[in-house]
Amino acid sequence: MKLIVQKFGGSSVRDAQRIQNVAGIIADTYRTGSNVIVVLSAQGDTTDDLIAKAKEINENPSKREMDMLLSTGEQISIALCAMALEKMGIPAVSLTAWQVGIQANRTYSNARIKKIDRERIQSELDRKKVVLVAGFQGVNRYGDVTTLGRGGSDTSAVALAAAFNADLCQIYTDVDGVYTTDPRIVQGALKLNEITYDEMLELASQGAQVLHNRSVELAKKYGVNMEVVSSLERKPGTKVKEVCKMEKNNIAGVAKDTSIARIALVGLEHSPGVAFKVFSLLGQARINVDTIIQSIGREEQKDISFTLSETSVSEAVKVLEENRESLRFDHITVDDKIAKVSIVGAGIMTTPGVAAKMFEALYDANINIQMINTSEIRVSVLIDQEDANRAVKAVHDRFFGGEE
Amino acid sequence: MKLIVQKFGGSSVRDAQRIQNVAGIIADTYRTGSNVIVVLSAQGDTTDDLIAKAKEINENPSKREMDMLLSTGEQISIALCAMALEKMGIPAVSLTAWQVGIQANRTYSNARIKKIDRERIQSELDRKKVVLVAGFQGVNRYGDVTTLGRGGSDTSAVALAAAFNADLCQIYTDVDGVYTTDPRIVQGALKLNEITYDEMLELASQGAQVLHNRSVELAKKYGVNMEVVSSLERKPGTKVKEVCKMEKNNIAGVAKDTSIARIALVGLEHSPGVAFKVFSLLGQARINVDTIIQSIGREEQKDISFTLSETSVSEAVKVLEENRESLRFDHITVDDKIAKVSIVGAGIMTTPGVAAKMFEALYDANINIQMINTSEIRVSVLIDQEDANRAVKAVHDRFFGGEE
Repeated sequence: MKLIVQKFGGSSVRDAQRIQNVAGIIADTYRTGSNVIVVLSAQGDTTDDLIAKAKEINENPSKREMDMLLSTGEQISIALCAMALEKMGIPAVSLTAWQVGIQANRTYSNARIKKIDRERIQSELDRKKVVLVAGFQGVNRYGDVTTLGRGGSDTSAVALAAAFNADLCQIYTDVDGVYTTDPRIVQGALKLNEITYDEMLELASQGAQVLHNRSVELAKKYGVNMEVVSSLERKPGTKVKEVCKMEKNNIAGVAKDTSIARIALVGLEHSPGVAFKVFSLLGQARINVDTIIQSIGREEQKDISFTLSETSVSEAVKVLEENRESLRFDHITVDDKIAKVSIVGAGIMTTPGVAAKMFEALYDANINIQMINTSEIRVSVLIDQEDANRAVKAVHDRFFGGEE
Repeated sequence: MKLIVQKFGGSSVRDAQRIQNVAGIIADTYRTGSNVIVVLSAQGDTTDDLIAKAKEINENPSKREMDMLLSTGEQISIALCAMALEKMGIPAVSLTAWQVGIQANRTYSNARIKKIDRERIQSELDRKKVVLVAGFQGVNRYGDVTTLGRGGSDTSAVALAAAFNADLCQIYTDVDGVYTTDPRIVQGALKLNEITYDEMLELASQGAQVLHNRSVELAKKYGVNMEVVSSLERKPGTKVKEVCKMEKNNIAGVAKDTSIARIALVGLEHSPGVAFKVFSLLGQARINVDTIIQSIGREEQKDISFTLSETSVSEAVKVLEENRESLRFDHITVDDKIAKVSIVGAGIMTTPGVAAKMFEALYDANINIQMINTSEIRVSVLIDQEDANRAVKAVHDRFFGGEE
């Protein structure tokens, strides 16, 4: 018998009507004879509302209590959806993370799933019930609730699919799949029928917001077949899997990330190990650095510049300023008016001319490239933020043949 | 070291300001050096809002899913209150019923507590934490959440006080204690310093809404000292305990219940066992009957009338009509324009003249008594509903000496 895991996000369950719609999708799947495990997020703005309630009382609540508070959102969703299924005559049961036994580590607010107990869910599936599981939550070894951080419900779904060796893990959302680029920016954006885990990972980390990285990493690790599909229209979505059919384009998509900034340390002393010192300090402060460029030293001084998430800038500057004495730099400059545009595709670095095609498209559009960064399956360029949308369109059109 | 259990109801935690107020009361108690276990209800209208959400999706949701849904309300309260205490520098931890191990039976929506595990709470108390427990909920042996029915959080508090042999169980509410009668009806109503469990039980079941019966029964069974106290004003409340000092009045209070109705079965066949048949049928349908009066039989026929809760009337009439054949009565009459006024006091039936004093007060006020019903510590009279407030005032004034 087939087993399908279906995950629905917050906007898909935001009110009674949407919940009934979701129950309809679940019921259709159940009626094909499949076993169904459903993972739900909190309704619409519930999480934000709860955070606001907390902040009204304590600007800086402990993460343990925050997780206790926020985990109620998903519990409400699963209970309501179970009621909607009952109404349709479909047997259903809602289960929280502690009822399932979703064992997580003790990192409150950003826990990792360690193990999922199978007994309770299996016994409910054996009784022909649709099992609705609260996403985004786990239980640590102290018996406390922990939440899984951003994209946590996607991670819950993939972890359940892995634990139960599901045939498919469907991520329902309000878009109908993964596109070659953001359809709001480029009219000619194409929906992909399929994409590899690695491509999806690169697209996600380069700014595409369809799936969260951790869920894709987990899917790749356990070989879980994923599908990104619309909860509002009944049509095929995008499959995410290990190997895809070769398509006529060498790239899967074009992504844009404007939430980055560049920090430059100007006038660093030109001594060995200074770069190591800078980045180990940032690492200790848990600040992720993306692209690094070290200028060629002129005389005794050099500059180091690197990009990082906009949200980490003030923390990074603080750490660097605190160590000004030992690092001995002249001054810091911060530029947050930059953007990163990336092309992602399984064979990019092994296919000659792909990177060149991108640079050419940008050159023709008169867009200046500040930095370049590549991986096995990605080429990223750093450009002025005001050029970002134009760059995405130019590159996308060059590869996917939109109008010039 | 003293251990105090404090319970705060929904109106006491309805918004951020009230939660901060509650945290202040808890902090003051903690700072006296006591161990503190706190039980909280859901905030203000949360439970009603959740019920409305459910009904929008399914008019008749399963009780299991309803309990799953409603139990989130208390979880939100305890997390928020823990944050408020943290802000004040008081170490606190919130725990749900499953984290504590509040074992309940499997009656969803109206479960009974069977046993409370001590380990988790004790370990938190040992670490000098205020322990905040979600009221109104338990976990059954299947690992499912059950709720404890009306007054459930009071019951949670008393059960915890019993399990931990607490020195005191304080029930904080928006009134400042138990009164000799409803202060909204009678100006001269007096606050009692103390009241016995039995008196409190009778007052509660005769319409006083301060404490729910189950919590008082439990307190009596385990000898838990309770105190009803205001969460808005810092002043002594009413102690509820086994034996009270004799006060100058023989009664503890006057109660009124207008949510009752009288059903009469007219023209019943005068055969042995017919009354037994009527009341066993109602018992099987789980309908509680209060006062019963069987008229003296005239020739072959007699009437039976009894009072019951207004909410049970339609169900009772249905059961009786369905058995019209076997019961052989002529017709049914229903009167919901009645009220019950009761005096409650530990020594009522052993003190000559107390009941007579009540009847005399009613007679002087020209109020007609339809039925009388007594227990060891209570005298109740059935009267016209429109006379109810006048009757309460007349009786209260006679015993507690208000203006005539």
